[in-house]
Amino acid sequence: MNARDLQAAVVAVRTNKLFELFVITVILTSALLVGVKTYDVSPRVRSMTLWMDLFVTVFFVAEIAIRFAASDNRRRFFHDFWNSFDTLIVAVSLIPVSETDMALVARLVRVFRVLRMVSFIPELRILLTSLVKALPQLGYVMLLMFIIFYIYAAIGSTLFEAINPDLWGDVSIAMLTLFRVMTFEDWTDVMYETMAIHPLSWIYYVTFIFLTAFAFLNMVIGIVVNVMEQEHARVRRKDDEERGEPTLADIDARLEELRQLVKAGQHR
Amino acid sequence: MNARDLQAAVVAVRTNKLFELFVITVILTSALLVGVKTYDVSPRVRSMTLWMDLFVTVFFVAEIAIRFAASDNRRRFFHDFWNSFDTLIVAVSLIPVSETDMALVARLVRVFRVLRMVSFIPELRILLTSLVKALPQLGYVMLLMFIIFYIYAAIGSTLFEAINPDLWGDVSIAMLTLFRVMTFEDWTDVMYETMAIHPLSWIYYVTFIFLTAFAFLNMVIGIVVNVMEQEHARVRRKDDEERGEPTLADIDARLEELRQLVKAGQHR
Amino acid sequence: MNARDLQAAVVAVRTNKLFELFVITVILTSALLVGVKTYDVSPRVRSMTLWMDLFVTVFFVAEIAIRFAASDNRRRFFHDFWNSFDTLIVAVSLIPVSETDMALVARLVRVFRVLRMVSFIPELRILLTSLVKALPQLGYVMLLMFIIFYIYAAIGSTLFEAINPDLWGDVSIAMLTLFRVMTFEDWTDVMYETMAIHPLSWIYYVTFIFLTAFAFLNMVIGIVVNVMEQEHARVRRKDDEERGEPTLADIDARLEELRQLVKAGQHR
Amino acid sequence: MNARDLQAAVVAVRTNKLFELFVITVILTSALLVGVKTYDVSPRVRSMTLWMDLFVTVFFVAEIAIRFAASDNRRRFFHDFWNSFDTLIVAVSLIPVSETDMALVARLVRVFRVLRMVSFIPELRILLTSLVKALPQLGYVMLLMFIIFYIYAAIGSTLFEAINPDLWGDVSIAMLTLFRVMTFEDWTDVMYETMAIHPLSWIYYVTFIFLTAFAFLNMVIGIVVNVMEQEHARVRRKDDEERGEPTLADIDARLEELRQLVKAGQHR
Repeated sequence: MNARDLQAAVVAVRTNKLFELFVITVILTSALLVGVKTYDVSPRVRSMTLWMDLFVTVFFVAEIAIRFAASDNRRRFFHDFWNSFDTLIVAVSLIPVSETDMALVARLVRVFRVLRMVSFIPELRILLTSLVKALPQLGYVMLLMFIIFYIYAAIGSTLFEAINPDLWGDVSIAMLTLFRVMTFEDWTDVMYETMAIHPLSWIYYVTFIFLTAFAFLNMVIGIVVNVMEQEHARVRRKDDEERGEPTLADIDARLEELRQLVKAGQHR
Repeated sequence: MNARDLQAAVVAVRTNKLFELFVITVILTSALLVGVKTYDVSPRVRSMTLWMDLFVTVFFVAEIAIRFAASDNRRRFFHDFWNSFDTLIVAVSLIPVSETDMALVARLVRVFRVLRMVSFIPELRILLTSLVKALPQLGYVMLLMFIIFYIYAAIGSTLFEAINPDLWGDVSIAMLTLFRVMTFEDWTDVMYETMAIHPLSWIYYVTFIFLTAFAFLNMVIGIVVNVMEQEHARVRRKDDEERGEPTLADIDARLEELRQLVKAGQHR
Repeated sequence: MNARDLQAAVVAVRTNKLFELFVITVILTSALLVGVKTYDVSPRVRSMTLWMDLFVTVFFVAEIAIRFAASDNRRRFFHDFWNSFDTLIVAVSLIPVSETDMALVARLVRVFRVLRMVSFIPELRILLTSLVKALPQLGYVMLLMFIIFYIYAAIGSTLFEAINPDLWGDVSIAMLTLFRVMTFEDWTDVMYETMAIHPLSWIYYVTFIFLTAFAFLNMVIGIVVNVMEQEHARVRRKDDEERGEPTLADIDARLEELRQLVKAGQHR
Repeated sequence: MNARDLQAAVVAVRTNKLFELFVITVILTSALLVGVKTYDVSPRVRSMTLWMDLFVTVFFVAEIAIRFAASDNRRRFFHDFWNSFDTLIVAVSLIPVSETDMALVARLVRVFRVLRMVSFIPELRILLTSLVKALPQLGYVMLLMFIIFYIYAAIGSTLFEAINPDLWGDVSIAMLTLFRVMTFEDWTDVMYETMAIHPLSWIYYVTFIFLTAFAFLNMVIGIVVNVMEQEHARVRRKDDEERGEPTLADIDARLEELRQLVKAGQHR
């Protein structure tokens, strides 16, 4: 029970607007200190920020420890996405880093600390959840896209390999080149090069652009429609509840009651 | 009747989740073997994959043969889009290929085999069907786009041919150049070149970009609206059915019945 | 009355599917003959096409003449957009062109003839009408865009004129450069050039891209919402009519009738 | 009360269509005079425009002064966004500028005067309001975008700094480079350069493009859904009011009344 009370206290502190602002400021400041290499801030401000960063890290560790202690079923604790996510971020934040030995690891650890923002701000959690939820929806379109890419890459690497092996030497390289063509990045340079040998190769590029653009468009429309359907359903339900208006079923029931009443009166 | 029973058995095997996973794995593996030129896989794995690929091909041939045998009207069998599509893919898969003689044909045949995925996974079939269904809808917009392209290409090839015949030498070359301008690919290079001779030629490019962008926007909106209308209608119908709620017509009928009852009672 | 009968006959011919196909083929063929410079068609086919093109032109002239003769109020004939459009296209088609003297005018006239397709195919007319209708809707957004462009162009031409007069020499040249930046066409080249002198000038470009992208997004959303509202209203109305379902007002009227009946029965 | 009457008069003048057209013409002309450096207009027209511009400025000053005088609570006058906006624009317009001394300031002041259009045309005010209203909605997505950018920039500046310090020398420079990659502007040049040293660095770019494109898509969809929800709610409310159709609650009340009536009749 002790852990539960403690958790309630931690939640109270965590959802406090002022504390939230303080934590966000500390995270952002410590992130920006990593970013700007030539520090124009005085050493005092810097060391203060480091201490506050340490405090925030300790708070996060304590918070997750208390949440773990208070959970009903400790074995299933990490089955929850956010519990695992928070623990991972906090664990990575704890890696002691000194900028002198391993600059690369030190920097990457500091960068990962920025992700504490995501687990801390509820709105960002919601955004991330919606991003993750939309991913499986895209699965089959991605597969179709992959098939289109794969077929064009195989054709391209077969036909154009002799022309420019840097772009078409391999199916995987050809797929990267096709991704480039899909983003319209200097795609005409790629095309003019192959058109010098195969004058009709523009058909290859134009059909590829049409197919991928069309598949992409379809995907976007699919997502929009899905999202809107959910929204509509949600709004309609909320509307009905809020207005407290009787449904047609209510009216129907009332009519049946009336019919019984009239019938009973007549058979009296 | 025998063919029918066999078909039911084949459908049962085909829709089995484990079998589906097995087939997809085999197709993808054999596709990736084509892709990666330097095989790092051991010869044993490779030959095993080839055998499994052969098995999948045989399964596909058997499946389509049984489906054909079981169809009511064999003459109309190929009127169905998916029957023709499957038969074509399977027929192409059957072409015997040895990488030594005709590398090009061998590779293209192997690539086409990837399309078996589309005819095998129901979700990809649905996606492809929706893509094919949306095409005629686009027909008239494509025609309008073609007219815009054609007029601009004719003007461009007349005015700018002397400046750069590689880009404007012909109406068809000019249309390719305009497609490039539409994708914003180095379009300013094209423009600055003609502006050196005709300083006002920026009007040509800017109006073209506006016209095509606007027509494209209109097309996309048209598709979105169409798709959503269909979705709405479908959802509304499903909603009504699922909720089992009485319609206004039901209420109306019930009221009529009640009126009859009251009237009858009064005339008793 | 004679003109009216003639018009009905012309409309009958015009809306005949076979005749429509014939006219479209002739227009497209004559258009393609202009496009492809090196004619691979035999002179016989070519001269036949020219004769058929002449026939189509004569038909269009006759059609518009009869429509004009049959109109109730000849003064208001040209107030209709399509009457004016058709007359203009037909009049331009009539200009006699020989490729020998004025190649430029000859080609432009031939190109304009393609527009007869638009006035001939009803679906293209509808598309063009919707494009023209959407234009005023965009008016104020275009004005806002112009103001954003103008302010940035004035700032840009003041700050960066010394750096590269070809891109920033003038407010009008600066606006063209900004249009290029908006299409993301080599915009970093423009930016890096000015950043060499004014290191903070990236703010100028990034804010400009955000502002224009955001305004554009707003515009697109505005159009989508408008179009969908109209569609929804139209569909709802059609739905109500088609289903022939009683409205709530009908139910209300029926209830009132019932109440009168019950009341009358009780006061008998 | 005097100020109030004066204000009513000013509003009457301001909303007069002819006066509106006159003011817009004057603002646009004076703006274009700034734009076009080589004035082809006669000195007379130019000086006339300057006088009219002065008149418009005086009118704006007078208008805002009267509005201020007529306001109930002068302390809260500037709490209204449009009052502050108008005052700022008018105040900046009043700065006396002579093109001889400070060409830069002179030009910027003149440019700012164009913004009077926004505060003058009601439709532009509505557009700007909707733009400003949509901004906070984007806040959290922008924060998420910033976090994605920041993490990739930190990784990029660590891994690729030695390869090209001009693009990756700093986290802030790396963020600008990533913005460039997001706009697809010569992003392959950036990629090929790093792939020469780290052959797998294409993963960095492709995942970044997917993540940002996906987040952006999500943002757009979020805005579209929000806007449409509001529109739907508004339209539904308007519809209900216009049609004057009884609601289900009305029908329910009527049925209750009828039941009472029938019951009363039976107990008589």
